[in-house]
Amino acid sequence: MSVLDEPLRFDAAAAGPPARPAKVSLVGAGPGDPELLTLKAARALQACSLVMYDHLVGKDVLDLVPRQADRIYVGKEAGRHTLTQAGIIELMVRLARAGKPVLRLKGGDPFIFGRGGEEAQALSAHGIPFEVIPGISAAQGAAAAAGLPLTHREHAGTLVLATGHLCGGDADAPALDWAQLARPRQTVVFYMGVAALPQICAQLIHHGLPPDTPAAVVEQATLPAQRTIVGTVQTLPTLALVHQVSAPALIFIGGVVALHEQLAPTGARTAPA
Amino acid sequence: MSVLDEPLRFDAAAAGPPARPAKVSLVGAGPGDPELLTLKAARALQACSLVMYDHLVGKDVLDLVPRQADRIYVGKEAGRHTLTQAGIIELMVRLARAGKPVLRLKGGDPFIFGRGGEEAQALSAHGIPFEVIPGISAAQGAAAAAGLPLTHREHAGTLVLATGHLCGGDADAPALDWAQLARPRQTVVFYMGVAALPQICAQLIHHGLPPDTPAAVVEQATLPAQRTIVGTVQTLPTLALVHQVSAPALIFIGGVVALHEQLAPTGARTAPA
Repeated sequence: MSVLDEPLRFDAAAAGPPARPAKVSLVGAGPGDPELLTLKAARALQACSLVMYDHLVGKDVLDLVPRQADRIYVGKEAGRHTLTQAGIIELMVRLARAGKPVLRLKGGDPFIFGRGGEEAQALSAHGIPFEVIPGISAAQGAAAAAGLPLTHREHAGTLVLATGHLCGGDADAPALDWAQLARPRQTVVFYMGVAALPQICAQLIHHGLPPDTPAAVVEQATLPAQRTIVGTVQTLPTLALVHQVSAPALIFIGGVVALHEQLAPTGARTAPA
Repeated sequence: MSVLDEPLRFDAAAAGPPARPAKVSLVGAGPGDPELLTLKAARALQACSLVMYDHLVGKDVLDLVPRQADRIYVGKEAGRHTLTQAGIIELMVRLARAGKPVLRLKGGDPFIFGRGGEEAQALSAHGIPFEVIPGISAAQGAAAAAGLPLTHREHAGTLVLATGHLCGGDADAPALDWAQLARPRQTVVFYMGVAALPQICAQLIHHGLPPDTPAAVVEQATLPAQRTIVGTVQTLPTLALVHQVSAPALIFIGGVVALHEQLAPTGARTAPA
């Protein structure tokens, strides 16, 4: 029997729901490479009995889950959602209320574009105990693996993480403050922005960022298939097209991108076309 | 004999330096709690023979280093530097050139305000092989442990990480773009800003951030002594004084701070004075 069918049974159980709901752990799965899980996250995975996991969680990370544990895929690939966000929260709450501890596994860090805040709010509102285990965010994984320091005294005093989802047609996503994102002397990383790369670069240039500002896209960061394409805000959209870049990929904008050639590990360098 | 004396010997060694320099690993020690190390960082620590570590690296993290390994403290506490940044780089290069593998252990993530970019550049320039192992940054550790989601659709579409070091008197640090930091609908986290908290809050208000914007300071994030003080951009400097907040501490600014009361684990809540 699928665990997805179980919640219905719980509600109807003659004995009533358990007095205390089980705990939910919101766990960051990191950027892909399972070696980049935290010790705490790895231990939680190894001890879990039920995992609800997202699209961007790598297979090698899931392999840490015990074989007998229940696995529920709740991924939201672009245009192909198995459950809405409200549905995910409802299922998680029902399982916890029925006494089933839930490991809610999210790509990267649960509190950085992971909607972990909304899930934690729902758990709190329902009186369900929870914990949050942070994870290496995709930008950090890509930075380390592709030789792109996120801050650097000569190039970037601040680091801005933004989502490019908006331009991908997600009406719920917050509007971006382009004037801010186009400021100099910062590193800007766009998550989920590859589909909107032409619009992102056009907006940045339109709002004053010099067209020759270094820019890169890192595909499949920290995984064996990782690729880095380097150009400028002007050239990157065409380069990404030529190299057939596809999601998941991150966009890096700023002076630090120019350090890639010097700092990338051998094998992680990609010459611009 | 102290390992600090050794580099002099290496240069004078009759046999000459080894043909190939040893590798340097720039490793993120995470925010403090050793359970928040990555698996990769923990393995590197357990296998190392020489560690050069910073002020903000916790004792429990260092305990993973084998007892027989050499430990070199190169911390730069405010006003009390054991070595300059140039001195740290010089020592690291000399050790690696002499064939000694170096584990360069930095608080948080090496590429987020860790000057890891500069160290990687120096290694590359000297032909020394290196790798970068990311770490959970202090903002992520504090966010998870204090119930402060870094992004949230209703409150913050972007996350900005900045350093408050500038105001602390470090003339080398880049000037901050206050107009940008005062924009609405974002979360701003200041690293190393506790000494400059009054100036930071005054600048943000001066540049248009509403004085009632939620603001918090998290001291000793992820460690047993963690404290969270919550107020507004207007009240936080006084609250921090009253509660005698001291470094290391992070400053969080933005609407997500209002979620702390609901999302903080029991025991991690601090009522405002």
